[in-house]
Amino acid sequence: MKSGLVMYDLAARLFPICRSITGDGIRESLNILREIIPEIQVYEVPSGTPVFDWTIPNEWNCRGGGIYRLNGDKVIDFNDSNLHIMGYSTPVDMVISLQELLEHIYTQPEQPDWIPYVTSYYKERWGFCMSDNQKKTLTDEKYRVVIKSTLAPGSLTYGDLLIPGESEDEILFSTYLCHPSMANNELSGPVVQLELIKYVKQLKHRRYSYRFVFCPETIGSITYISRNFESLKKNVKAGFVLSCVGDNRTYSYISTMYGNTLADRVIKNVLKFHCPNYKEYSFLTRGSDERQYGSVGVELPVCGFCRSKYHEYPEYHTSADDMNLISPEGLQGALDVMVKVIGTLENNYHYKMMCKCEPQLGKRGLYPTISQKGTYDEVVALCDFIAYADGKNDLIQISDIINQPIQILIPIAHKLIDNGLIIKD
Amino acid sequence: MKSGLVMYDLAARLFPICRSITGDGIRESLNILREIIPEIQVYEVPSGTPVFDWTIPNEWNCRGGGIYRLNGDKVIDFNDSNLHIMGYSTPVDMVISLQELLEHIYTQPEQPDWIPYVTSYYKERWGFCMSDNQKKTLTDEKYRVVIKSTLAPGSLTYGDLLIPGESEDEILFSTYLCHPSMANNELSGPVVQLELIKYVKQLKHRRYSYRFVFCPETIGSITYISRNFESLKKNVKAGFVLSCVGDNRTYSYISTMYGNTLADRVIKNVLKFHCPNYKEYSFLTRGSDERQYGSVGVELPVCGFCRSKYHEYPEYHTSADDMNLISPEGLQGALDVMVKVIGTLENNYHYKMMCKCEPQLGKRGLYPTISQKGTYDEVVALCDFIAYADGKNDLIQISDIINQPIQILIPIAHKLIDNGLIIKD
Amino acid sequence: MKSGLVMYDLAARLFPICRSITGDGIRESLNILREIIPEIQVYEVPSGTPVFDWTIPNEWNCRGGGIYRLNGDKVIDFNDSNLHIMGYSTPVDMVISLQELLEHIYTQPEQPDWIPYVTSYYKERWGFCMSDNQKKTLTDEKYRVVIKSTLAPGSLTYGDLLIPGESEDEILFSTYLCHPSMANNELSGPVVQLELIKYVKQLKHRRYSYRFVFCPETIGSITYISRNFESLKKNVKAGFVLSCVGDNRTYSYISTMYGNTLADRVIKNVLKFHCPNYKEYSFLTRGSDERQYGSVGVELPVCGFCRSKYHEYPEYHTSADDMNLISPEGLQGALDVMVKVIGTLENNYHYKMMCKCEPQLGKRGLYPTISQKGTYDEVVALCDFIAYADGKNDLIQISDIINQPIQILIPIAHKLIDNGLIIKD
Repeated sequence: MKSGLVMYDLAARLFPICRSITGDGIRESLNILREIIPEIQVYEVPSGTPVFDWTIPNEWNCRGGGIYRLNGDKVIDFNDSNLHIMGYSTPVDMVISLQELLEHIYTQPEQPDWIPYVTSYYKERWGFCMSDNQKKTLTDEKYRVVIKSTLAPGSLTYGDLLIPGESEDEILFSTYLCHPSMANNELSGPVVQLELIKYVKQLKHRRYSYRFVFCPETIGSITYISRNFESLKKNVKAGFVLSCVGDNRTYSYISTMYGNTLADRVIKNVLKFHCPNYKEYSFLTRGSDERQYGSVGVELPVCGFCRSKYHEYPEYHTSADDMNLISPEGLQGALDVMVKVIGTLENNYHYKMMCKCEPQLGKRGLYPTISQKGTYDEVVALCDFIAYADGKNDLIQISDIINQPIQILIPIAHKLIDNGLIIKD
Repeated sequence: MKSGLVMYDLAARLFPICRSITGDGIRESLNILREIIPEIQVYEVPSGTPVFDWTIPNEWNCRGGGIYRLNGDKVIDFNDSNLHIMGYSTPVDMVISLQELLEHIYTQPEQPDWIPYVTSYYKERWGFCMSDNQKKTLTDEKYRVVIKSTLAPGSLTYGDLLIPGESEDEILFSTYLCHPSMANNELSGPVVQLELIKYVKQLKHRRYSYRFVFCPETIGSITYISRNFESLKKNVKAGFVLSCVGDNRTYSYISTMYGNTLADRVIKNVLKFHCPNYKEYSFLTRGSDERQYGSVGVELPVCGFCRSKYHEYPEYHTSADDMNLISPEGLQGALDVMVKVIGTLENNYHYKMMCKCEPQLGKRGLYPTISQKGTYDEVVALCDFIAYADGKNDLIQISDIINQPIQILIPIAHKLIDNGLIIKD
Repeated sequence: MKSGLVMYDLAARLFPICRSITGDGIRESLNILREIIPEIQVYEVPSGTPVFDWTIPNEWNCRGGGIYRLNGDKVIDFNDSNLHIMGYSTPVDMVISLQELLEHIYTQPEQPDWIPYVTSYYKERWGFCMSDNQKKTLTDEKYRVVIKSTLAPGSLTYGDLLIPGESEDEILFSTYLCHPSMANNELSGPVVQLELIKYVKQLKHRRYSYRFVFCPETIGSITYISRNFESLKKNVKAGFVLSCVGDNRTYSYISTMYGNTLADRVIKNVLKFHCPNYKEYSFLTRGSDERQYGSVGVELPVCGFCRSKYHEYPEYHTSADDMNLISPEGLQGALDVMVKVIGTLENNYHYKMMCKCEPQLGKRGLYPTISQKGTYDEVVALCDFIAYADGKNDLIQISDIINQPIQILIPIAHKLIDNGLIIKD
């Protein structure tokens, strides 16, 4: 749980920053991550740059704003919650009628106490978000509206880190940094991913290289893919988009297009034993950057991974997605799953028995020397591993067939290799 | 529903004719169909002609007959119901004892009010059919029996029509004309098929050629296949036997031998959305001409299609299968399904996205410019179509995977082609 | 049931003999079998011979022994039950304290009235087995313990028989002889296998050759495989390990590694019709010699077959597995299944219809000449056989698809061959 607390504290530090898909918020957030892992590389891509079918938009920054009564009293203010200003709002400063104002106010009527999170990235607009209950208290004839924003050519910012392993084959982890003050659907991903970087760095031996991407959602991953397409296609053998990995309710997995990649196989195997009631979602429910990594023509083996899945939990995209929603335990659970995923991938070889018939385990101290019913249980996993180590099954398949978690099988595999009874590949 | 009434009225006109697998009844019926679609070709195949393992039988015609008391009173008479004379009865005119008569009377004891439909095509016999209740009233010592039939060399009659399309690849529709006065299990098929011919004729563009066959069941389809084997094998890509398509209770589909042809795929897809509770029957329940089209050595991709399936509804093969059993709505529903089948086949290409990552739909007016939860639903079908348009899936597969009916997907496909985002094949 | 009684009586004759994995007990048992089938070959493999990863152990024989009070009164004695002496016990004759004695006593506390069956083949020990209730009556300070055994270089004994057929392709049956007085988990297999030999010998025509193996479990089958590896790999097309085939409670089948061999297919087909509630066990529950035949590198298509499966019935490996547990009916049922398995394999060809469309069965007397609903049932199996005799399905597949037992289909196949309508292969 030490890692859980470290992750939670880092999320708390990042929480107040007003991030968007471009601008100083993501830069400041990346700099905080780089205080811990300085090797993260940061890139800037100028507004107007074409990325596949898209174009990098103008950069947006917001310093303040709100709705005020004509006597100066505050109705809502950016400083109270940066969700109050609609993302990518153009600047405004004027007095307007209540009727006009209402056309610029967004609420979530079925969740009347919460401020919704709303953006208009690709059409110039301005707007405010507030709770539906507060909206009902607006009765003045006129109000002053202020948005101190800039929307102008600048750049889109992202970061990545490649930790080399024995092979150029890569495992990809990707998460996003582009939402203002939200905890589960913004900060849980980066803080878990940062802790995962620490874990990968300290591994004494790495079969795979590991790539970690921090980028704004959608336009950021499209940009990242467009600039790294050849190497991603060549090297990535499995990948995971970390999103909403901080609460403590369940575990969720979003499959690839056909659900049959190494990434699907490993995460389904790990979750089946880690949390048998985990939720499996089809690619039809995709919503984060697995959309882009798995899109036609890109088709990388990248799954989505969440605790409670985005769109599915009530606080999603509202002011209720705050630091109370996530917990050290929630973050730790997500980290544990990803650590098991890495352990599985690192050991996922095809194992093959070297002798015909069952080996005599007794003479090697691997089998009880007395035979009476009820004495076999402890060696069942060992014998079943041997039974399916025919060189056709990789470790994940053996685990799935014999219904034993990989963590039980890894030491068995090592013991059998040490005894000269099996070989890898 | 206009078509439904037209079809119903035509069935009513055809109903009184005494048809069999040969004879003037089928000729007269085909002539009535040709009043509407004169392009239907009619063929005569002489008795004695070998067709695969079979031989065209003698031609049978019946002008009247019945059972009479010796005082001349009618017990049953052909003019009251042509079901009273067993199909292919040899001529007879004599007085016989009740005991002898009973050996020539067929009833359906478990449906005691209805006259059963019975035939003896391939062994010379004579017989009468009547309700079991009426049979119990026979108490005279002797009766006069009369059958004014002829059974002699003649020919077997069938009709077909080929409407050419852009390709020689064909879609086949086949139905039968060989039962006396029955409505669902005789006339529903020909009247729906005739309306389908009108529909196909008026299509501005036809990717496929369309073949329509009207023939007596079993011996007729065997004859048809034997005389058109090479072209059927070369051209038919999917086909449907229309049988019992006039009632209003359910929809049924009889699969091909292995259930995996284009015909199976398209009709299952259409019915899944048209009537989710439709009934799927295996090839083991085959009973109409899908038996021959799908037989070993022929193996054409031809499914059976019914509303209530033959053998399964109580009125089947009895006098209760009359004009009250079918309805304009029932016929219209069957026509609608076949029209959807044609629309699906005409548009069933492999579609492939031309850009990597998701396209920017917003700039093309295909995506909402504001992002708030709950605003995505209308574009889900569009985005999911794009996600699976990888060139490996045809339209039916995309529909099955993303669970959207083809009618929703066809305009989406056209819109994306117009925008240059996807290509066909 | 005549065979059932013969088998039961033979088991009763073999029951008292003290068998182990080596020694005179198995020799004496094989000699009794050879009185009936003298063609069974017997082999001796010297102690110390390497067999794959194993070594033939020293030979063990036991002439008597027991636990006695110091006044000479018997507590337990080998002559009352040979289960009282732990298998492969080293010789002993001394007076020891109760405390020391208890370390050498094995009981099955959850089945307190029964003597458990315990062995220590590969580590030198001595011990006694008794009921847990009797153990509780031991209260003397000291007891005399005697085991009159020898454990010394000798040999391992097994037998086999190959009955040649038209082809060198073989069907294998294997059972074990290595337990002392137990009925279901020892003698049921050999007596059913012996009766099966009689059945195979009297077959007028044999498509396959048949191999029958009688060997001690595990070390015996490993020895057998190591000495016959090339010919087994080349010839065996399907095989069955007969174990616990004498009780009357259910039927059980233990699948091969992937459950997809000819052996799996045939036994599942036969059992599905013979006893629809039979139990199917995965290879993960393997426990008899299917473990060795199906081990990595050997990978022969050999399933396990039981009535109540070893490990699963309460009397397993105790003194309650006696002649009351098995019955003539139980043995007969197992024999019947294996006879059906042989019948299926002998007739399991790919059948192919020679005419296009359905044949005219009526002219061959194979179809009713009158058509009325309800008259088809008797010819359904015939028509469905024809429908799937496309040369792609073997008889087992046809049976599985059309859901008719092979015994119904074999005469149909012969009738259609006689009529020239189908060919084999």
